[in-house]
Amino acid sequence: MQLHSPDSTQPPVQALEWHNSHLRILDQRYLSETVVWVECHSVSEVAAAIVDGVVQDPVAVGLVAAYGIALAARSIGQTDDWAAALQADFAVLAKTHPTSAHLEWVLSVLDSRLRRLRSSETDVPELLAQAAINLQDSDLEASRTTGRLGAQVIRRHDRHPQKFLTMGSAGAVLRAAHAEGLVEQVYLCASATPGATQLAHWELGRDEVPVATHGAGAAGQLMKTDNTNWVVVGAQRIAANGDVINDLGTYTLAVLAMHHGLRFMVVASSAAFDLSLENADELEHTDPLLQRGGRLSMDVTPADLIDVIVTERGVVERPDENRIAELLSYQRLH
Amino acid sequence: MQLHSPDSTQPPVQALEWHNSHLRILDQRYLSETVVWVECHSVSEVAAAIVDGVVQDPVAVGLVAAYGIALAARSIGQTDDWAAALQADFAVLAKTHPTSAHLEWVLSVLDSRLRRLRSSETDVPELLAQAAINLQDSDLEASRTTGRLGAQVIRRHDRHPQKFLTMGSAGAVLRAAHAEGLVEQVYLCASATPGATQLAHWELGRDEVPVATHGAGAAGQLMKTDNTNWVVVGAQRIAANGDVINDLGTYTLAVLAMHHGLRFMVVASSAAFDLSLENADELEHTDPLLQRGGRLSMDVTPADLIDVIVTERGVVERPDENRIAELLSYQRLH
Repeated sequence: MQLHSPDSTQPPVQALEWHNSHLRILDQRYLSETVVWVECHSVSEVAAAIVDGVVQDPVAVGLVAAYGIALAARSIGQTDDWAAALQADFAVLAKTHPTSAHLEWVLSVLDSRLRRLRSSETDVPELLAQAAINLQDSDLEASRTTGRLGAQVIRRHDRHPQKFLTMGSAGAVLRAAHAEGLVEQVYLCASATPGATQLAHWELGRDEVPVATHGAGAAGQLMKTDNTNWVVVGAQRIAANGDVINDLGTYTLAVLAMHHGLRFMVVASSAAFDLSLENADELEHTDPLLQRGGRLSMDVTPADLIDVIVTERGVVERPDENRIAELLSYQRLH
Repeated sequence: MQLHSPDSTQPPVQALEWHNSHLRILDQRYLSETVVWVECHSVSEVAAAIVDGVVQDPVAVGLVAAYGIALAARSIGQTDDWAAALQADFAVLAKTHPTSAHLEWVLSVLDSRLRRLRSSETDVPELLAQAAINLQDSDLEASRTTGRLGAQVIRRHDRHPQKFLTMGSAGAVLRAAHAEGLVEQVYLCASATPGATQLAHWELGRDEVPVATHGAGAAGQLMKTDNTNWVVVGAQRIAANGDVINDLGTYTLAVLAMHHGLRFMVVASSAAFDLSLENADELEHTDPLLQRGGRLSMDVTPADLIDVIVTERGVVERPDENRIAELLSYQRLH
């Protein structure tokens, strides 16, 4: 682990650098005090980085795992059956963050790619590294699109600067809204994973978005007395009906938003949708989807508390099964 | 600061020992790791202990301040005008925790006592020490009465073991309910002041109340999926209409309780009522009553979210100005 200054040309969300022989990850656990980059030279170092919370943003977790597969392939060098040779590595990475649907999606994309390798494709480690680089580029592009779409939704409701309350993982929309002059203040409520709060504060501050961090308990009082307009949160996984699984505390913000008449926006990658999960609101708090490291660390926000879900593929207002199916059936045009 | 085992004959709430030359306070900041007693030999050490969060429970803060006045009087020794001689010490102690109405009440009781000293009362330091000891005895008795009254309210609604969610400072009722077989489980949600959470966990655990601590963000998910019946919290100050000022996060629990159909109980000393404060729900989040150390650290729960307030003087269901005035007009019968 080494100390470096951040590169100002870094992409706004991932905070990852691929250096061919290794991956560098901006450590989310220490951002409030200092900027630390973690170097991963093997798939096991990548898996440990996810488990230890070095990276926590749902999209970034998937991307880090993609580079982990590339590192694993490089250490194998050559084989006749890449899917079989990497099977154990896929399994290890999948278990690092079982809630993240984006991680699941990234791994399934890479696995499919390996299963339809052509015989002419001989440098598979390089091919996997390139796949991860492409994913990072498209995540960055997706983040910009999501930000633009989210800012449009906000502007449609009010053209004046507004107050936002967030818990992190929704920076794309908040930064875009700020760039369009729609942000008076962002209140960042600390989630149970301090790293996510620190990353969000660091990223918003870097783009000069006015941001103030508060404890989780402050949300109610701020909504009641400070004319907050929007709650904007991320999502680890979204059920077919629009129920959202996200970091513990999201559901509380949704109930508070409804009580105070605030709009509630979920910002996510379209890969966060899990159509095999019909709904999520009935999940017991002991369900593996809501646990990390044996502790309750996620909660479920039912779709009827959500005003709008914003993804890079479009926007779903008042989400339900039909509107979500419609969004996902569109071909990607950009 | 020294390490000792706690004395098992300690009173259940205060965790204070008066040793004539000094006061020993169970340090609430380190209870999760170890048991530490802080010794205060002067009023300035007492004031620092309150400011530093060694003691945080609203009733205990008042009691510690009473011993602080006794220590200040001892260091003065003799004077013709005790009220004047101690004025600066009263002012310093009042500023240590401006939100606590109990602290304000204790100081006003001692100040009145000094202003009507008879000429025959010459050993004023001893008189003040005895006043503090009497307060500690009556706080202990009040805590038992409050617990008994709270358990009655709970039993009236359901005679079976129930699930409770708390944020601390309500142990008197939870322990009494447990002694009567009414507690299946207590979920303790961490407040912004970790010491209060640790003290609550330690006290409940000592009386073998089944208690599990969760982050503040878990409250919504636990209420939704775990059949919780009651939310039980403390109060730093209660306005004439029943609005409750308490540690940040209390208001959020009240909104969640209403949303999920749980009953909401406030447990407080009757000295927490501040009839000069008509209501509190309109207080700005910058109001000094909601701040500690320049940060938002209290919130306001409006009376209409509260099912019942339990004090040592009786119970107010569906609190409003008339019912509270009626409670406070009764003479104390026990």
